[in-house]
Amino acid sequence: MKKIKAPFFIVNPKSYLYGEESLKLALVADRLAEEYGVEIFFTAPFADLANIKANTKNLRVTAQHMDPLVPGRGMGHVLPESLKAAGAEAVFLNHAEHSLKLSDLVKTINRAKELGIITIVCADCLEEAIAIAKLSPDILLCEPTALIGTGQTSGYDYIVETTTRIKEIDENILVMQASGITTGEDVYQTIVHGADGTGATSGILKAPDKAKRLEEMIQAIVKAKNEK
Amino acid sequence: MKKIKAPFFIVNPKSYLYGEESLKLALVADRLAEEYGVEIFFTAPFADLANIKANTKNLRVTAQHMDPLVPGRGMGHVLPESLKAAGAEAVFLNHAEHSLKLSDLVKTINRAKELGIITIVCADCLEEAIAIAKLSPDILLCEPTALIGTGQTSGYDYIVETTTRIKEIDENILVMQASGITTGEDVYQTIVHGADGTGATSGILKAPDKAKRLEEMIQAIVKAKNEK
Amino acid sequence: MKKIKAPFFIVNPKSYLYGEESLKLALVADRLAEEYGVEIFFTAPFADLANIKANTKNLRVTAQHMDPLVPGRGMGHVLPESLKAAGAEAVFLNHAEHSLKLSDLVKTINRAKELGIITIVCADCLEEAIAIAKLSPDILLCEPTALIGTGQTSGYDYIVETTTRIKEIDENILVMQASGITTGEDVYQTIVHGADGTGATSGILKAPDKAKRLEEMIQAIVKAKNEK
Amino acid sequence: MKKIKAPFFIVNPKSYLYGEESLKLALVADRLAEEYGVEIFFTAPFADLANIKANTKNLRVTAQHMDPLVPGRGMGHVLPESLKAAGAEAVFLNHAEHSLKLSDLVKTINRAKELGIITIVCADCLEEAIAIAKLSPDILLCEPTALIGTGQTSGYDYIVETTTRIKEIDENILVMQASGITTGEDVYQTIVHGADGTGATSGILKAPDKAKRLEEMIQAIVKAKNEK
Repeated sequence: MKKIKAPFFIVNPKSYLYGEESLKLALVADRLAEEYGVEIFFTAPFADLANIKANTKNLRVTAQHMDPLVPGRGMGHVLPESLKAAGAEAVFLNHAEHSLKLSDLVKTINRAKELGIITIVCADCLEEAIAIAKLSPDILLCEPTALIGTGQTSGYDYIVETTTRIKEIDENILVMQASGITTGEDVYQTIVHGADGTGATSGILKAPDKAKRLEEMIQAIVKAKNEK
Repeated sequence: MKKIKAPFFIVNPKSYLYGEESLKLALVADRLAEEYGVEIFFTAPFADLANIKANTKNLRVTAQHMDPLVPGRGMGHVLPESLKAAGAEAVFLNHAEHSLKLSDLVKTINRAKELGIITIVCADCLEEAIAIAKLSPDILLCEPTALIGTGQTSGYDYIVETTTRIKEIDENILVMQASGITTGEDVYQTIVHGADGTGATSGILKAPDKAKRLEEMIQAIVKAKNEK
Repeated sequence: MKKIKAPFFIVNPKSYLYGEESLKLALVADRLAEEYGVEIFFTAPFADLANIKANTKNLRVTAQHMDPLVPGRGMGHVLPESLKAAGAEAVFLNHAEHSLKLSDLVKTINRAKELGIITIVCADCLEEAIAIAKLSPDILLCEPTALIGTGQTSGYDYIVETTTRIKEIDENILVMQASGITTGEDVYQTIVHGADGTGATSGILKAPDKAKRLEEMIQAIVKAKNEK
Repeated sequence: MKKIKAPFFIVNPKSYLYGEESLKLALVADRLAEEYGVEIFFTAPFADLANIKANTKNLRVTAQHMDPLVPGRGMGHVLPESLKAAGAEAVFLNHAEHSLKLSDLVKTINRAKELGIITIVCADCLEEAIAIAKLSPDILLCEPTALIGTGQTSGYDYIVETTTRIKEIDENILVMQASGITTGEDVYQTIVHGADGTGATSGILKAPDKAKRLEEMIQAIVKAKNEK
């Protein structure tokens, strides 16, 4: 897998967008990734991944979850090989809306490593983040569950502390901070305070003009990068 | 949604096939559906559904599961709208390998009805089948869990009894019987004993020639239909 | 097991009470059961059941859940035999706060029947109640999830309709209605509108005097019984 | 809570024993704990804990699981306060037969610390053990899932390696090794190879004379302790 260039940005429309609407935003993100030279991850429902991959060139197409399954039975579960074959390069794991058993998280991270899929693993508190750091995910996302969707950021002290603590355990882990990112300024501040990446859901989807808001966020990534 | 023509057949490769291999078998099934005029459902991993739909004309493209989710948050879950948009016409629910909470089963069947998605609901014993029958699924599959993958059929008395009991509760439900279907003869016997449909996983996948085995099964459907 | 005398009442302190506090309310309920000749079920955490049984004479000591387990491995799960040995005579299943897979619900009801444990099975909508009715629970509780803990009752039309529909499927099932029961008057109205039993959690626990509120409710049961 | 004296032993009859049979073995363990001055933990179903506590003096009465619940709703879940009130001093968490979501494991360990309950946290591979070590459990049990109930021990190299790795992360964690402990000799070898404690289920329950087998194991603990 291609090395991740930090600072990166994750567009995460969750289950808000699917089909045509999902592709439409992906096309915007794809253009911005090229224009600004920024690494952009884009999540979509499983059934949309192949179509987004087929129509874009610059995105890290990202699944929202996968199971520790190997090819075989596993009726109804999310087979890592099927995501890879559809063009997914990355996967979210243990998001607060789909939290995992620890034993499954260990197995699924291992499956991702076997297949060269980038893991973006979520933690909902610092203690959980520290345990996860020992599992060597590629990206670790510290998102206090209580703030999801509120438009409140987690505070810059929190960003600095969690980033430092995770890097102490494993300096190869990229730390993402993404609570309540609503504006380009939020993106800028998050990166200059030390995060390797950030991203947004409602910050983009609720904007009067999604494409414009996303461009503003990507420009903020570039600005923060240049000052780092 | 288009009315289901019984007797029907379900090709269910579970998580054994994905990507190219899944499409390859789908193309065979698509040709057989046309050639023999038999209703064929074909399941695939979520990420493969759109590609199979785009490359076939006669199949009921079928998802292996979906969640009761509505568009919105629901990170990592399977959004019914995304399956529909990808071309899925049917969905399995409550398979023994992905059994559901009763309250989720009720909600998910309702979501499928809203979207015009055919529901194929599994029961692992007669008591469970009778409770499910009150939820009016389109197709009810009675598959004693202990027999899955064994190559043993559930016995013709079992087929007759369960089919009768389910039809007494709701005569509109199509009853599928599919334990241990390995040969064309198994398919034929299952249908002549009263099932509205049948299907196979390992019976097809472990055959020396998958396409030939599937054709033998579809021919058996036709033979049973003509004698009914 | 001793036949249930309707109308009955269930004191359900959930996980609000444990240890001394749980026993204290159980002693009040025990006295009222004797004094008014009313069948009272009393729930407690698993670890409290034996102590409550040892200190009361008239209550149906009731567990809040159990698993379909048989004696053997099953580390950390709730063994039906252990509840029975501790003196539990009844068990709640599929409460909205601990909803069950359909296949586990079927197995657990069967385990309860083997051991002579009374099943109180919860449904959160009429469709779910109708499916559950086919599983022949002893008591079926229709409690729209959205109303739990709100102090709002489900409406008398709802009570009449659900009770009628369930009895049509199986007249042996006792129907319990218990949403938002706060006062003796709520209890009285619920029973006169056809429910076989009712009960409360916050209606009792938030009362200025728990014992007095409970007595008021039991008196209402007696009044409704005499008028039926 | 009283400091744990190593090497310790855990008698874990899982759901094999309940009621009278559970108490009978607890009385044997209680006598041995006194006679040999060895720290013995004894697990039982939730409903048996209070009775075992009331009838023994020397055991660490141990629950097989608990939920992260606080007093309140939580119908059907295992309230930590109710275990504490019943006399439980310790709790198993994340056993292979009741594996936990990482976020619940974090919360439940915190609840145990609030209440002074000893945590015995299970890991089914070294990677999982290392992540758990960052959560500072009191006792960490490394038990390769594949060996549970087989009578095969995990090998002394495995014991030495896992014990060393866990102590490197947090030297305060007591490391328990318990796969396939069948005889006194297994107990002795496990402790001399560096484990702080061990225990057994089927090794005791399948013995022709349970009391005698348990005494043999406790004697082996003493022997190993004296040589350490």
